[in-house]
Amino acid sequence: MGELRKDPITGRWVIIATERSARPDDFACEPQPIRARLCPFCEGSEGKTPPEITAYRTNGSAPNGPGWQVRVVPNKFPALGIEGELKSRGVGLYDAMTGIGAHEVIIETPRHEISLTALGTEHVAAVMRIYRERLVDLKRDPRFDHALLFKNVGQAAGASLEHTHSQLIATPIVPIRIKDEMRGGRTFFEYRGRCIWCDIIVQELTEGSRVIYENDAMVVIAPFASRFPYETWILPRNHESRFENTSDEGLWDLADALLVALRKLERGLGSPPYNYMIHSSPFREPDLPSFHWHLEITPRLVKVAGFEWGSGFYINPLSPEEAAKFLREVDLETKEAGT
Amino acid sequence: MGELRKDPITGRWVIIATERSARPDDFACEPQPIRARLCPFCEGSEGKTPPEITAYRTNGSAPNGPGWQVRVVPNKFPALGIEGELKSRGVGLYDAMTGIGAHEVIIETPRHEISLTALGTEHVAAVMRIYRERLVDLKRDPRFDHALLFKNVGQAAGASLEHTHSQLIATPIVPIRIKDEMRGGRTFFEYRGRCIWCDIIVQELTEGSRVIYENDAMVVIAPFASRFPYETWILPRNHESRFENTSDEGLWDLADALLVALRKLERGLGSPPYNYMIHSSPFREPDLPSFHWHLEITPRLVKVAGFEWGSGFYINPLSPEEAAKFLREVDLETKEAGT
Repeated sequence: MGELRKDPITGRWVIIATERSARPDDFACEPQPIRARLCPFCEGSEGKTPPEITAYRTNGSAPNGPGWQVRVVPNKFPALGIEGELKSRGVGLYDAMTGIGAHEVIIETPRHEISLTALGTEHVAAVMRIYRERLVDLKRDPRFDHALLFKNVGQAAGASLEHTHSQLIATPIVPIRIKDEMRGGRTFFEYRGRCIWCDIIVQELTEGSRVIYENDAMVVIAPFASRFPYETWILPRNHESRFENTSDEGLWDLADALLVALRKLERGLGSPPYNYMIHSSPFREPDLPSFHWHLEITPRLVKVAGFEWGSGFYINPLSPEEAAKFLREVDLETKEAGT
Repeated sequence: MGELRKDPITGRWVIIATERSARPDDFACEPQPIRARLCPFCEGSEGKTPPEITAYRTNGSAPNGPGWQVRVVPNKFPALGIEGELKSRGVGLYDAMTGIGAHEVIIETPRHEISLTALGTEHVAAVMRIYRERLVDLKRDPRFDHALLFKNVGQAAGASLEHTHSQLIATPIVPIRIKDEMRGGRTFFEYRGRCIWCDIIVQELTEGSRVIYENDAMVVIAPFASRFPYETWILPRNHESRFENTSDEGLWDLADALLVALRKLERGLGSPPYNYMIHSSPFREPDLPSFHWHLEITPRLVKVAGFEWGSGFYINPLSPEEAAKFLREVDLETKEAGT
């Protein structure tokens, strides 16, 4: 069992996950992505994963066998353990907590596709619905305060399996990045009486230079203070602090916006490594007028070095206006663009 | 000229450095480290760098020629420009500032050495003295509020030149990571009446399991909430908020501690990529009882992925107690260890 530990200076928590890897020389080599023949995520290999948590199945197929569209399983090498009681303890001036949490894998298709963009909008909307279902379910567990949905694509972005999938980690603590955003949103709300993300949407749609795409429910922008080249945010047009409150129609529009954003990145930049993550309000908060859920896509085209690590300042060699212009102009209509 | 931009939600600033790289396909390939034959940092190639800012020279040698021990030059591709007036402006709800700052390179030796550990303690103490000299000098420029000293070693840590060097970036804004640490230190000080780093030193030296090395002035530990395997902090034993107030004796002990820490990493783990950075109090603060300068070494053995980026939570597969034990036991006495 791992342990959660708090840095007493910054309040940042870390997961000491000693069961994931242990010996010093385990870090020597980069793991190679597992190819199709051995892939535990492909249809027919259901026995290679822990028993499924949920799946969208057709024709009344039985759990843990073929016949599914999207499937959620526990991570085989979880960063946190699902079983046990949450116990906090002091270690002199430090704080630690039992390493309790949920670490799940969302397998987005039974076929060995290496990109979410190989799937159609209807299918990706089903992936978004299963994200929502998992948040609703995990929220019932009183030990958890938050869950982060995220995706790693490509080795440079930390992916170790190429079959397209996303992950979810539920934690007994609200992550510091979410807290920072909540604090910023609250400060703006106290001063201006409005949600800052709602104001950003109005300003971006009025100004236009950083808008990449929009549909009925979603707006896709290159943020004004982009940390990375081609950083992209997807924001719901209407205020909503929780991802899990999004309607089926909203999730369909999210699937559409996500596919457009990712296809433009892939087509325009030759399938770069990237991460995406969904920031949603913590489970125990009421519906917040000052927080607005959103999805952040961060391509991994430049290395993060000592200055960024040491300062929290980022050096971005490409302006978001240039990035947005480039992505707007990527043509998805002509062939290769797929579904 | 680039621009500084503030994320209105988190308060994090970014440098939009459009002159460093511009076209979308510039990100396609990793730059290869420049080898000895073409190295602009080697003695005799002084003309390949911008004119030097300062250098420790012997025998009265003239600037910008051979005959130096440590040499400081402006970065040829600076993230921020040194010339110009600092101007802040609003862009709707956003804030931006002219991209003014100093970006310097500290060339640690005239020989083409790829590690600082190839140098002796006396030489590394000279590097530390030139660090101090640069902070004292830059502090006089009223446009700057802070300077971060840092080092990137290995491609995975963002290095693009292998000749051992460090960098310094002075900014008109105090970086958010420094602000976070200052806030944490202040909160602890208000509650307990002591510096939290001073308390950490006492607890670590008493407990012992996370101590890697100590000498008269410096303590080397694996921090309790280490984000990365083999993360290492060097803390001055006596309270001091500013690096630049360190005495020559203190800098000699820092050089010794740094060499021991880096040699143990290199010997024990086969010269992994790493970064180090010095966190020192902002220029415009008085001497602070609640902030304590320190040096953080972060080996780059594991990839940072979507969960870490999205949450600020880190997953560390190795406990700091195991890391410290391993590093304590790395033997630097037998051959190969030499200065």
